[in-house]
Amino acid sequence: MAVHRNADPASLFDAARTGDRVALPRLLSLVERGGDGARGVAEIAYRSAGEAYSIGITGAPGAGKSTLTDQLITRARTRGLSGSDQVAVLAVDPSSPFSGGAILGDRVRMQNHALDDKVFIRSMATRGHLGGLAVAVPDAVRVLSAVGVPVVLVETVGVGQQEVAVAAATDTTIVVVNPGWGDAIQANKAGLLEIADLFVINKADRPGARETRRDLELMLELTQLGDWRPMIIDTVASSGDGVDELWTAISDHRDHLIANGNLERFRRERLAREFHQILLARVEQQLDALLAADRFAPLVADMSNGTLDPYEAADQLLAGLFPDV
Amino acid sequence: MAVHRNADPASLFDAARTGDRVALPRLLSLVERGGDGARGVAEIAYRSAGEAYSIGITGAPGAGKSTLTDQLITRARTRGLSGSDQVAVLAVDPSSPFSGGAILGDRVRMQNHALDDKVFIRSMATRGHLGGLAVAVPDAVRVLSAVGVPVVLVETVGVGQQEVAVAAATDTTIVVVNPGWGDAIQANKAGLLEIADLFVINKADRPGARETRRDLELMLELTQLGDWRPMIIDTVASSGDGVDELWTAISDHRDHLIANGNLERFRRERLAREFHQILLARVEQQLDALLAADRFAPLVADMSNGTLDPYEAADQLLAGLFPDV
Repeated sequence: MAVHRNADPASLFDAARTGDRVALPRLLSLVERGGDGARGVAEIAYRSAGEAYSIGITGAPGAGKSTLTDQLITRARTRGLSGSDQVAVLAVDPSSPFSGGAILGDRVRMQNHALDDKVFIRSMATRGHLGGLAVAVPDAVRVLSAVGVPVVLVETVGVGQQEVAVAAATDTTIVVVNPGWGDAIQANKAGLLEIADLFVINKADRPGARETRRDLELMLELTQLGDWRPMIIDTVASSGDGVDELWTAISDHRDHLIANGNLERFRRERLAREFHQILLARVEQQLDALLAADRFAPLVADMSNGTLDPYEAADQLLAGLFPDV
Repeated sequence: MAVHRNADPASLFDAARTGDRVALPRLLSLVERGGDGARGVAEIAYRSAGEAYSIGITGAPGAGKSTLTDQLITRARTRGLSGSDQVAVLAVDPSSPFSGGAILGDRVRMQNHALDDKVFIRSMATRGHLGGLAVAVPDAVRVLSAVGVPVVLVETVGVGQQEVAVAAATDTTIVVVNPGWGDAIQANKAGLLEIADLFVINKADRPGARETRRDLELMLELTQLGDWRPMIIDTVASSGDGVDELWTAISDHRDHLIANGNLERFRRERLAREFHQILLARVEQQLDALLAADRFAPLVADMSNGTLDPYEAADQLLAGLFPDV
């Protein structure tokens, strides 16, 4: 089924569900671009309950996340998580002006899986999405879910604040470190310890893997944990060593989440946070519009004169805008 | 005049104006801490028109900003800007959990000026101020202004986004670089080129000063400039070489701003931006309160069920909150 360039979101979803390889990227481009297009897509995605399980992969540049993701694609294809063998990857790069897969051109896995029509790979940057990647990426995951993809790998390029938040907003979050003095401490500094469901010590054939594991365990001891204690898995992504164990750990974490009802609970909590982001972005837009409209020039003039302080001005402006809590 | 620990802001201002050395730090602590205390202080500061001229000093760590600031303190004391010879320094460190001067203990200038009661030095971090340093630092400058300080030096520790914004929100902004290949380019990357009224090439006795000047000049050629062309001054802060020329340049820039009316205009524009920050922080607070109050649990439940998407939910919630623009 060929999809017209100006097809509406509903037609694009119909086409994507029947396997159209053009419709899905177009839906994700709409999400990325933000505005009314993104909204139209999100509305449909929300209402189409899907079952996608999302897995976040984050860690410092050079830790081997791409190679690991490549290996996880293969595991998702051969072992699945819930019967189906499709898989999608979202490679999140907030700093990139490119998107839509352009930056992935040089990645090994493109060669490995490019001809596999059950693998969908896509890079994502923010282009104008209201709420930024914190909203755009979950929206993209929902789109993939709505068209029937059962597993979505969300890989970040680095460990910037935005990227960490995006990786954390998945069902299972994997933090990748390397052997070597201080790597675990760096992970702690970047806030990665708090978000990890699973730690991977990648390049574990290098010296220092045991020390890194000890560091991680020590830091976990010092951390307030919930009812899941993060596992630590050694891998050598380049050879595939340990990746089966990692896939088993992902599956175990998923079973654990489902068994105690946390999968639904955590998803609901993430949804509440997304909603908050959307509200905030919307309000900021409104404030920008109001200020741009020069409606407040008199207020600002009063502030300049010293006859009004901005706190009082804010009170005046916001009075009545919010219902009493 | 001794000030009671629980003195109200108005009494603290009165005491600070008569030279009480305890009242002023206490006012600034209130600003830093945020909340109602900060607000009470800001209200009075706004209404007490002062004449403080603010000078921002920013640049990469190690560029020699502290030593330069130390030298500028001496110039402010001996040459002043508008007759008076008092001076205050706010050392801005967003990453520091300390404040109130603690981190400055090891700084040379503490020894140089600690006994000079016309010099007031204080480090600032954010502790909870609504709107963060972008609002807290201008508030602190206004407090100093209100108690009669004529010159405030605002020095940042690094060139993080927050720090650059804070340094830029002063009357004259000085960007400090060092000789050496690429330093000017780094400055460009960090967004320093756009905010500089004056460039200082510090450690100008080292090789590469001439090339750095050429790089800066080239980049200025490529930049859209207003009616002030940023000057470039060579200094060796450790010996004081060039600092007199820098002080003259500051004074020239100030004269230029006053002559064409830009001092007032730029201050008004900065005030509008601060107001925007305050509004946004206030709205975010309200949203947090609303969400915490679980008022939206039903909305979030509907979103989880897929019967409502968050865009629609945001529309429902915000409908009527803002007047038409």
